Parts: sequence; structure tokens; C-alpha cells
Amino acid sequence: MEQAEIGLIGLGVMGSNLALNIAEKGNRIAVFNRSPEATRNFHAEAGALQDRIVPCETLEAFVAAIRPPRPIIIMIKAGEPVDQQMELLKPYLSAGDIMIDAGNANFHDTIRRFDNLKDSGLTFIGMGVSGGEEGARHGPSIMVGGTEESWKRVETVLTSISARFNGEPCVAWLGENGAGHFVKTIHNGIEYADMQMIAEIYGILRDGLRMDAAEIGEVFGRWNGGRLNSYLTEITEKVLKATDPVSGKPMVDMIVDAAGQKGTGKWSVIEAQNLGVAATAIEAAVAGRILSSQKAEREAAETIFGLPTPVELPTDKAAFIDDLESALLAAKIGAYAQGFAVMAAASAHYNWNLPMPTIARIWRAGCIIRSQFLDEITSAFTADPQAANLIVTPAFSQMVKDADGALRRVVSHAALSGLPVPALSSALAYFDAYRRGRGTANLIQAQRDFFGAHGFDRIDGVDQHHGPWGS
Amino acid sequence: MEQAEIGLIGLGVMGSNLALNIAEKGNRIAVFNRSPEATRNFHAEAGALQDRIVPCETLEAFVAAIRPPRPIIIMIKAGEPVDQQMELLKPYLSAGDIMIDAGNANFHDTIRRFDNLKDSGLTFIGMGVSGGEEGARHGPSIMVGGTEESWKRVETVLTSISARFNGEPCVAWLGENGAGHFVKTIHNGIEYADMQMIAEIYGILRDGLRMDAAEIGEVFGRWNGGRLNSYLTEITEKVLKATDPVSGKPMVDMIVDAAGQKGTGKWSVIEAQNLGVAATAIEAAVAGRILSSQKAEREAAETIFGLPTPVELPTDKAAFIDDLESALLAAKIGAYAQGFAVMAAASAHYNWNLPMPTIARIWRAGCIIRSQFLDEITSAFTADPQAANLIVTPAFSQMVKDADGALRRVVSHAALSGLPVPALSSALAYFDAYRRGRGTANLIQAQRDFFGAHGFDRIDGVDQHHGPWGS
Repeated sequence: MEQAEIGLIGLGVMGSNLALNIAEKGNRIAVFNRSPEATRNFHAEAGALQDRIVPCETLEAFVAAIRPPRPIIIMIKAGEPVDQQMELLKPYLSAGDIMIDAGNANFHDTIRRFDNLKDSGLTFIGMGVSGGEEGARHGPSIMVGGTEESWKRVETVLTSISARFNGEPCVAWLGENGAGHFVKTIHNGIEYADMQMIAEIYGILRDGLRMDAAEIGEVFGRWNGGRLNSYLTEITEKVLKATDPVSGKPMVDMIVDAAGQKGTGKWSVIEAQNLGVAATAIEAAVAGRILSSQKAEREAAETIFGLPTPVELPTDKAAFIDDLESALLAAKIGAYAQGFAVMAAASAHYNWNLPMPTIARIWRAGCIIRSQFLDEITSAFTADPQAANLIVTPAFSQMVKDADGALRRVVSHAALSGLPVPALSSALAYFDAYRRGRGTANLIQAQRDFFGAHGFDRIDGVDQHHGPWGS
Repeated sequence: MEQAEIGLIGLGVMGSNLALNIAEKGNRIAVFNRSPEATRNFHAEAGALQDRIVPCETLEAFVAAIRPPRPIIIMIKAGEPVDQQMELLKPYLSAGDIMIDAGNANFHDTIRRFDNLKDSGLTFIGMGVSGGEEGARHGPSIMVGGTEESWKRVETVLTSISARFNGEPCVAWLGENGAGHFVKTIHNGIEYADMQMIAEIYGILRDGLRMDAAEIGEVFGRWNGGRLNSYLTEITEKVLKATDPVSGKPMVDMIVDAAGQKGTGKWSVIEAQNLGVAATAIEAAVAGRILSSQKAEREAAETIFGLPTPVELPTDKAAFIDDLESALLAAKIGAYAQGFAVMAAASAHYNWNLPMPTIARIWRAGCIIRSQFLDEITSAFTADPQAANLIVTPAFSQMVKDADGALRRVVSHAALSGLPVPALSSALAYFDAYRRGRGTANLIQAQRDFFGAHGFDRIDGVDQHHGPWGS
């Protein structure tokens, strides 16, 4: 029997969908699940794709079914289970075989797993897969980290299953060891910020302009036809227009305002801190989810403080809604700039040589933050891959110049009206701090020298580094 | 010869000052430095305190000079050197001896060092010392973590050297292992936020109101007589009024606006992330320092964007300066509330049982953030040690109600004028998110369910956790 091109372990929703996608694109795939029954059921329900799927009930049979060197995708719960699965697999593998972790791993674990296999003859790929269940089934964005040789072995299969933007596959090899999972982490960090910013705009429309869910959905629908065209804008319209089958009310109005998180936002912030990069928009988004989950505390606070009354709009309603569109665009630029800055710092620190234009390119389709905007980022970084910051590239600096006034009016109005805009205001502050040649840290340096003799540099270069503070 | 009450290793500026402070308060102290010459010089220059200082040139003699069980303060460069010093010391120590790390250690290292000594008969104290060189010499705030038994051995000496506020010593045992160094870390995180907020207010006065350094110094001097009375307000006046002896210009105007950082701000943010606590004001402050250090990038950005023109003030100048005072107070409440919330979460996570009123109490003098404000925090937490958040305590909720309008006007004005206020606006957003019983995370939960089937809870408790999204 013809050997399979690739193997996959773990037939949960994501693993099943990925396996079906692989088979559908003409690839023969061996599959294995801890429970043989799940493997049998998966195969039985694969319909027309059955012929290309080799269900295996032992690891030995599974490995034997794959053409060497064997690429084996592991799609199970992140963490310990991955290490355990790798140990179980190893005895059956041969030199050159490639274990591929396609889960949401912390990239530090990926680096460790990659390093641990050095000199073993085996190798490891950490593969970020974005796009949720739908993406896995019909075309995800795929971020690959590992050796270039191992990438060559899987390039054809992964290219066949990935999303496409204008025909270009949204998959790439991004660098050694943890590069793929790291880029996926920052993708998610940016996704957190993007979603938080959308939620803040929604809050202004709901609590400031007193619009109902369907009306707000209309606004997002209109925006999706313009500069904010993106998957997140599109689904925001959809969820806002959906009706709850139980109550007949708008679905969003029936959902508790307490958001969960799974770790990638937090990891993005921690890594930004370790690398010394400002990632305040992502931090604001993580904090937003944290505060959302403290619902009882918030309700108690509301009884103490009451709710504020929105002040009058700075313009007429239609113009203000246009301002909201521009404000969201300007703030998004700040969030994406921060995410790319974190990646640039990590690339240097971990010696990944991350290709910024390629990263933007493979995020244009398949993943949650896919958008027209990312095509513009691709162009900006293609023109200048070493740009110091997305904000100063010609296309984006023009966008910021066109939109920052609106962001100012929106932040100002929200501040006066008691409408929380942590991510929008952090992005504005980031821009205003970034574009100012002379900031205010001279005062901080003076204070630090005063109380801790930390010293400072002088603007005239004179070699005198402490102040005449006396005591 | 009478044995010393305590020993100290490391006669750098901080170690020397601490040793002199200990001797001056009537305690006999043995000192040791890697270089015997430094030890001899220190003793030779100790003047009237010479009799109470026992200079030792070998570790053996040093240990023998101390009364068992021996408390030995190690005040050297944080990190590896501390572990090395501990290993060098160990062979000379006996059961019950206490090694005390008084440097700026990462509390995770402190926990590790404490745990490593378990069952050895020796023990370890991680001791946060705040107040800079002056504090070390004349009275620091001291945060102690270790066993209660080891604390009892050092309580008298430490109480004698600590700062005092209305006669009460600013030293306390805060809990086991890393509790002291952790609380010192959060102290520093709050200090970062406080200094950043002061710098933002300074920026508004300088770049918005076009006031010169001396005028701004006057403003801070006046504020120091009111609700903002604190060490940081006091030194802000002093540094703003200081004249550069080289140029004759205001000293602050000659200092490069690029601030350094030593890690505690970053550690605060990382720990907040790991514990799931919103610490956006501290994050804004760390980010402010990061951006300040990217001076060349900022100057390049200014050539692209130019500098904004401040808009008209929302009130007359005197009233706006009053607003700035209230805004700084309101924002500080947010920053301190976040710091205390991080400590509450850590206390639960690490089983420290941190005493919040005590922490506020020992920060009232000696340390960099000492202030009247901390006396008010002490009262608030003494009245309600389990308060969910500083913001909702009766005294502080009233302060917020009185001051939040000013903070809104200031953030609004800064946003419109292009003056960066990342920490002030983060504190406002924190308050506005915290006091709103129904936020906007219902939309985020809807989006997450749409693309990832994450599920949500319903406000009516109906057991149906996915939306009717179709596809």
C-alpha cells in the first residue's frame, strides 16, 4: 500500500479538521488517536476522503504507514501532554523524522523541545496554526519554526492546505526552533488588541450614543466595506445582528460581559517586557479581559460611583461615527506597530531573522486578524523590511496623519464621558510619545539621580553626570 | 571582645551606609569586603563609630566575630554574585545562622535561595531596602521576608535603623521566603508609575502651557503643601529649580530625556500578568521609559509628523493647574490601587498572607514613595484589610469622586493637544472600566465563540453557551 505523506496524532476538532483539509487537498494522511474508537469513527465519517486517510490503532502501525523521513503533526492539549506524546512516539521513529507540534504552545517550550532533540537524529517543528476550526478545515494561516531542511520536507503538504490571498499561500518558514510559535503568539496578542479596540468602539456606540445592537451592527457592516475591511469587522457585524433564539433579543445583549483568555495575550506582554519593547495596547487588552472577569467587583463599584452621563458629542452624530472609524484605524496601526516591534526585538534576541514582509503576507488570509490592512502592511514592509516602526513607513505615516485627529476627538470624548477606552488611549499615547523628539524623561533622570545617584547624560555632551542637588 | 550583633558583607555605597546606620544606632557590627583594603578604609573613615565596627579580613574571622545565631547581611550586586557569596559563607556557618540578602533581588531567586536552605539548619531572609543611599544611611523602609523566627533575631537591630513615621518604625516582617523582596518590587513598580505621572504633568506644563522649569518647580512646591505632599513631589520641585553650574540654565533642561531602568518595573508587570491582575499604569510607566530610550527613533518620527499645536485650555490657566493637581491625585490612586491588587493576588498565590495595612504603614517614611497619601492608605486598609480595591474604600472613593472630573479634563486636553499621557489615561480607563457593572466583553465573548467555539455564559443563566451564528 502507498505510504502516507504525513501523519497526525489527536483527532479533536482542530486535529480532525486539519486532517480532513490535508486529505481533501490530495495528500495521503495517517491518523492516530489515543482512543482507537475515535480513530475508527473519524475514518468512518470521512466520506469521499476515506481513501486518502489511513486510520491506525497503534503507534507502531501509524509510524510504519508514513513515508520517511516522517512528518508527524501532534495536535493535542498544549503543555505536558505534548512532551508525553513525544516520548511515546520516539521509540518508533528513525533518523530524519519530524515531530510537529501544531498546538498553541508557549514558544519557550518549543525551543526546549527543539533543543532536546539535537543530536538525536530526530527534529522538531513548532507550527502556529491560526484561523480556528474553520481555518483548520478549509485553509489556515500557518507559521513554521524549525530547521530549513525539515521545512522542505513539509512545504508541499502545508502549502496545499493553507489559506490563500490572491493566490499566494499563507504559509511560510519563519526561522529556527520557536520562531513559528512565537509569531503565532504575537498574532494572538495583536488579535487581543484589535478585539479590545472594537469592543471599546462598540461601548461608545452602545453607552455613549445609545444605539442598539442591530444599529451598531449596521455601522460595522458599513465599515467592513472600507478601510477597516477585515474578518474581525465582518464577524462583529454578524454577531451584533444575530438574534438569540431563546429570548428573541439581540444575542450579544444576552451574553455575560466576562471574557476568558488562554495565555497568548499574557505571553505577548511578558515577552515584550523581557525584550524591552512597549506593548501597551496588548497590555490594555489583556487588562480589559481581566477586569471583565471581575464582574462582582465591578458591580459593587458601580453601586458606589454610579454611572457617568455622556457629554455632548464634539460633532454631529454622523461625523462622530466617521471619527470612530478613523480612530479605530489609527489605533489599530499603533497596536500592529507594537506587535511588529516586539517581533523585531525577538528576531534579534533569538537569532531568528524573522522576515517581516512574509509574516504580514501570511496573515492576510486564514487567520483571525486577516484583513486588507495586512496587505498594506505587507507592502510597507516589502518596500522597507528594516523600517524602525510601522508608523513611520510612508503609507502608514500618511494614514496616521489622516486619522489621528479623529482618534484624539474620540479619546477626548470618551474621557469626558466616562467611557473606558484603555486600548484606544494607549495607542494614542504611544503615538504621541513616539513622535516627540524631546520627551519628559529628563525629569525622571533628574529624580533618579537625586535619590539614587543613578547619573544622567547631558544634551551638550559635557562629561558631568550628576546634578547640583545639594540635600 | 564583645561579639557583634550582626554582620554585613559588601561595602559599596549602600552597604557602607547601612553599616554606618547600624553602628550609629548603638549596634555592634562586623563588616567584610572582598577587598580587605576597602574594609580597612571603611573602618578608618568611620570616625566616632569606629568602636562599634569590627573590620574583618577573612570570612572565618568575620563569622567568628558575630553572636550566634548570626544574622549576616549581604549587600552586593544582585544575581549570581549573591549565590557565590552564599556558597563561600556556608562552610563557616552554624545551625540557626541567617543569611540576609538586602539587594534588589528578583523574589523568585529569593524563594529559590530560601527553599534551598531548608533542612540545612541555616536560613535565609530576603530584605527589601528602600530609600536610596540617604535612606540606607539615616533610615530606610525595610521589608522583611523569611521565617518568623529569623525575623525575631533581627527585629531589634532593624527597628533601630529604620525610618520612622510619627515615631512608628518603618520595618516589618511581611511573610515567608520571597515576601519582602516581592513587596519591594511592587513598591518600585508603583514608584515607576508615580514618577511617570509626574513627568506627564510636567510635560503638559512645559509643552502645553509653555512654562519654564522654575515656574513648574513653583507649582510642584505649592502642591507639596497640599494633598500631593510626598517625597517625590518635594524632589520634583527641587530638581526643577536647580541650576546647571556649567551652562547656568535650568538643570533639567540640560539632561537627556532617556531614562534607564533596572528591572523592578518590568518584574512588577510580568508578575501582574502571571497573576492575572491589571497593572496598566505600571506598564505605561515601563513603556514610557522604553520609548524614552529610543531617542533616535523618536527624533526621526518627529521629522515625519512634526509637533502638534496644543489646543486652547478648557478653563483659565489657574483653574487648569488646579485640575492638574487633582488629576495627578486621581491617577495616583489608580496606580496604587493596581499595585495593592497585585500584592493581594500574590499573597494568595504564594501563601504569604501579606498584611496590607502594615505594608502601607512602613512605606510612609524612608522609601521613595513616602507620602501623606500612604498614611491615608494605611488608614483605609486598617479600617478594611480585605477591601477588594483601594478605589472602593470610603476615603478613596470620595477622593476619586472629587478628582475624577479633573482627570477627565486633563486627559481630554492632552489627547487633543498631542501631549502624551499614557499613565494618566491608563489610570482613567482603569477606573472607568472598574466602575462599570456591564462592560463590553460580551462582544468579545461573542466573537470568540464565533471563530473558536469558545462558548459563553448567558445573563439569564440559560444552559446554552453558543451563538446562532450560522456561517
